[in-house]
Amino acid sequence: MIQHERVTLLGSTGSIGVQTLDIVRHHPDRFSVYALVAHSRWEELARQAVEFNARRVVIGDERYYDNLKTRLAGSGIEVLAGSEAISEVASDEACDLVVNALVGYAGLHPTLAAIHSRKRIALANKETLVVGGDIVMSEARRMGVDILPIDSEHSAIMQCLEGEKRQSIKNLIVTCSGGALRDMAKEELQSVTPEMALRHPQWSMGAKITIDSATLVNKGFEVIEARWLFDIEPERIKVIIHPQSIVHSMVEFTDGSVKAQLGNADMRTPISYAMLYPERSAIAMEEFSILDYPTLTFKAVDHDKYPALGIAYDCLHRGGTAPCTMNGSNEVAVAAFLGHKCAFTDIVGAIEYALKRAEFTAVPSMEDYDKANIEARALAKEYLKL
Amino acid sequence: MIQHERVTLLGSTGSIGVQTLDIVRHHPDRFSVYALVAHSRWEELARQAVEFNARRVVIGDERYYDNLKTRLAGSGIEVLAGSEAISEVASDEACDLVVNALVGYAGLHPTLAAIHSRKRIALANKETLVVGGDIVMSEARRMGVDILPIDSEHSAIMQCLEGEKRQSIKNLIVTCSGGALRDMAKEELQSVTPEMALRHPQWSMGAKITIDSATLVNKGFEVIEARWLFDIEPERIKVIIHPQSIVHSMVEFTDGSVKAQLGNADMRTPISYAMLYPERSAIAMEEFSILDYPTLTFKAVDHDKYPALGIAYDCLHRGGTAPCTMNGSNEVAVAAFLGHKCAFTDIVGAIEYALKRAEFTAVPSMEDYDKANIEARALAKEYLKL
Repeated sequence: MIQHERVTLLGSTGSIGVQTLDIVRHHPDRFSVYALVAHSRWEELARQAVEFNARRVVIGDERYYDNLKTRLAGSGIEVLAGSEAISEVASDEACDLVVNALVGYAGLHPTLAAIHSRKRIALANKETLVVGGDIVMSEARRMGVDILPIDSEHSAIMQCLEGEKRQSIKNLIVTCSGGALRDMAKEELQSVTPEMALRHPQWSMGAKITIDSATLVNKGFEVIEARWLFDIEPERIKVIIHPQSIVHSMVEFTDGSVKAQLGNADMRTPISYAMLYPERSAIAMEEFSILDYPTLTFKAVDHDKYPALGIAYDCLHRGGTAPCTMNGSNEVAVAAFLGHKCAFTDIVGAIEYALKRAEFTAVPSMEDYDKANIEARALAKEYLKL
Repeated sequence: MIQHERVTLLGSTGSIGVQTLDIVRHHPDRFSVYALVAHSRWEELARQAVEFNARRVVIGDERYYDNLKTRLAGSGIEVLAGSEAISEVASDEACDLVVNALVGYAGLHPTLAAIHSRKRIALANKETLVVGGDIVMSEARRMGVDILPIDSEHSAIMQCLEGEKRQSIKNLIVTCSGGALRDMAKEELQSVTPEMALRHPQWSMGAKITIDSATLVNKGFEVIEARWLFDIEPERIKVIIHPQSIVHSMVEFTDGSVKAQLGNADMRTPISYAMLYPERSAIAMEEFSILDYPTLTFKAVDHDKYPALGIAYDCLHRGGTAPCTMNGSNEVAVAAFLGHKCAFTDIVGAIEYALKRAEFTAVPSMEDYDKANIEARALAKEYLKL
């Protein structure tokens, strides 16, 4: 009854990618690797390709093609490079499941390619839904494709919605750790260094998303993703601070009942849930006991300290290219902050600057998104004087 | 699509009964009252019967028959009395849904009568499953009858299991407030008065169940009920103390994920869930917000302070008439304690005394249960010198 699936993994050398391969490693009867894709870490990519006996590998940054090709010579593994090759392995007939763990806007095109080839999609790339949620979900519905979220919050909501009727849903409650800077006063944020903002108290993740957690841009993006994934009006998506990151999110029902999903801060649970759905893995990667977390706390978000969350709701209400502009300007600003080229508070400054000046398209085509992304990046650079 | 159901409500004047009628009042299109049953509060029963236009009423204690009959003269409501009449209205063709909110062993027979007439059953009577869980659930399966728990813990577990596969379940985690005496040292329990034990911090319930909460006998019974309702081995049912009574119970899955159901300490949520299942009421009787409960805590049970929980697990392992003996002796001891005729700690003393001396039947018939119940009560009286 359980089918074997050939997996294309986009972003195999990142944090989610490595953990995805851990799931594959534990479920050899269920999964094999068809293709692996990485942006630039070609040595790690080559090592993974050999271990998992991949049929194809793609290196996003073409400068590393020769290195990778040489390293894999004689292995029988086909080596490709560039963004078109990424969409190609995500839509190839020989693949069943696409795990999209790319970081950034680059993840949108391969998701659409996978949808149009009717792949099952486990989605960790946030930008796919933040930027193109409307198009992506309507295309997925049209093609009859399941998009399964790899994100602790959306996985939690999906789990709480299992077996429930749409009309019984009242609100989605997305929990938020508050990020690395949650115990700081608003006034102190100005002088935060990348090192401080990268010390996330619960989750060990990539640098970009850890900074996005500290600004709450990430939580704002999760609200946008939830809006599209679960087809729920923005007013019915609430965010609450839960510093322990044990309750991964909740659903409130019309009868006053609330369901929550809990677990360790271990991404392998949502990854395996998305990959194996509707089954659950028989292996818990890490045992969880509520008695290890004797106290769980909850409080409201301080919107004054975290303006990015309100900006995300505004973008969701404006629709069109607004979330794309927020995303593009944020990408540039976070990279600048990580490179010590701007202050922590300049991230939100750059987003606001870009949103005020960017051309707005209410019903964008894919080309409009590409243009909005380029314009947003340029505006953020302008603001940051880069 | 939503069918109208005629309800027989057993125990209409008790705490659950009154709240059940509140659900009926809020869902006039969905429910009407067919029959109401009360043990002795005939005036309240008469008032309810008139308000809800019941077709039949039954007073359990036949001494009140004449009073009730006189009060309802000319109303067109048929008046009956005694335990056979209770089973009759629970199995009558004109009724669709039986809500069994009787207290004590008396609830078992009408549940079986309702099963054999293929009624949908919303079950608040604990003794049905504590004493006869094995027979009751196998008869329910044989007859294709749904038994929907009215109990915050089992309702929580049922909600968390919605849409999940049996093989994905690892453990059920039943939460426990710790009862009215949770902040007392073991040594102080000896001198507890009924008034002290009746001050439950979260739930407003009947006297019997409030005392059972203070001893944790109630939690032990819930473990036994969960074993039968969800067909799970006792070793996979855990109890943890959660003083705020907001997380009503949880389910742990094989992949490390845990689902929990939360809400106010308002029985109308589990009552409406059982009555309307698989729909949910569109009306929350009381709004719930997690922000009103900023801190939730969890800890292990102190088995030394609460021996009753371990006794319940032992009874479950022994099977047969053992849980019936525990239940019968507990009923007598709790009544004695409430009547100031014994100490709080004598409740567990009476249970242990009865379990040691009672005749044990491994595969009991209904008559064996009746006999075990009578013997347990006599043994408890012997121990308590009543």
